[in-house]
Amino acid sequence: MKYGIAVFPSKQLQDIANSYRKRYDTKYSKVPPHLTLKDPFEAEEEELKDIIKEVRNVAKQASPFTLEVYKYSSFYPATNTIYMKVRETSGLLELNEKLNSGLLERETEHPFVPHITIGQEMDYDELSDVHGRLKLESINHEETVDRFSFLYQLENGTWTVYETLLLGNGGQ
Amino acid sequence: MKYGIAVFPSKQLQDIANSYRKRYDTKYSKVPPHLTLKDPFEAEEEELKDIIKEVRNVAKQASPFTLEVYKYSSFYPATNTIYMKVRETSGLLELNEKLNSGLLERETEHPFVPHITIGQEMDYDELSDVHGRLKLESINHEETVDRFSFLYQLENGTWTVYETLLLGNGGQ
Repeated sequence: MKYGIAVFPSKQLQDIANSYRKRYDTKYSKVPPHLTLKDPFEAEEEELKDIIKEVRNVAKQASPFTLEVYKYSSFYPATNTIYMKVRETSGLLELNEKLNSGLLERETEHPFVPHITIGQEMDYDELSDVHGRLKLESINHEETVDRFSFLYQLENGTWTVYETLLLGNGGQ
Repeated sequence: MKYGIAVFPSKQLQDIANSYRKRYDTKYSKVPPHLTLKDPFEAEEEELKDIIKEVRNVAKQASPFTLEVYKYSSFYPATNTIYMKVRETSGLLELNEKLNSGLLERETEHPFVPHITIGQEMDYDELSDVHGRLKLESINHEETVDRFSFLYQLENGTWTVYETLLLGNGGQ
């Protein structure tokens, strides 16, 4: 089974992201707008109990942090993706690191670049056009993140939330 | 903002539901297969804190229960919907009742009939055909439910999980 870990930002930010995703993101209908904390990984269902226990520990030891979107950017030419760039704060980097160590360690294909995808698998012309326009737009959005989600993938490629994890001991 | 409460069943059951939903459910891409525990309701964001506190209390006082799908059925002629019928066990009925009382009380348009929708807004001919076939199929699926999800709706009509609630005190 395939699992993943992500932050779903506020409705406000998700609605902004979706206004682009609707046209430019081939995975628009597979999952709501999100910031990936841990790339999708395979695990047996029997491993789930230990994995989720570890993920809960990481969440408890972490603290809420500020998510700051400060510009639009692109992964081109690596991939034809456009995204909202998220500030690499220590809280976010630590969380990513902890979710990728110990029992949760997996080989990653690329370094962690916190982002919220708004377009992917775009034609070069469209990517170039949209990115050109968005580079000129200013976005400066801050919000507090106090939770993240552990998800699994269904056969049709969509993602279901298995559990939300609150950061720190607040709330529960 | 619009909120709702639902159970997302196992991947296995969701995959079965999606094999029908893909063709017959106009809301296929809006939300994963689910059993609605509380119909969508409007609330101000300022109310969220109190509401989620109450929902957490309900979850803590509840216990995991067995979800049993035992046949396919239809809401026709009320609506052109086909669904997996879920056994009305006391655990499920109590949970629904508690999620609709006190601070969480809202007027409901119809009595609680636990179900997992697999087709909706269908043409009469298709509904009749598919329902006719499914009535003859046997389905007998049981699984333990130990959590439910509190969701909010985005502007595009899709749903994001705000928080998963574990039933009883187990797990956390």
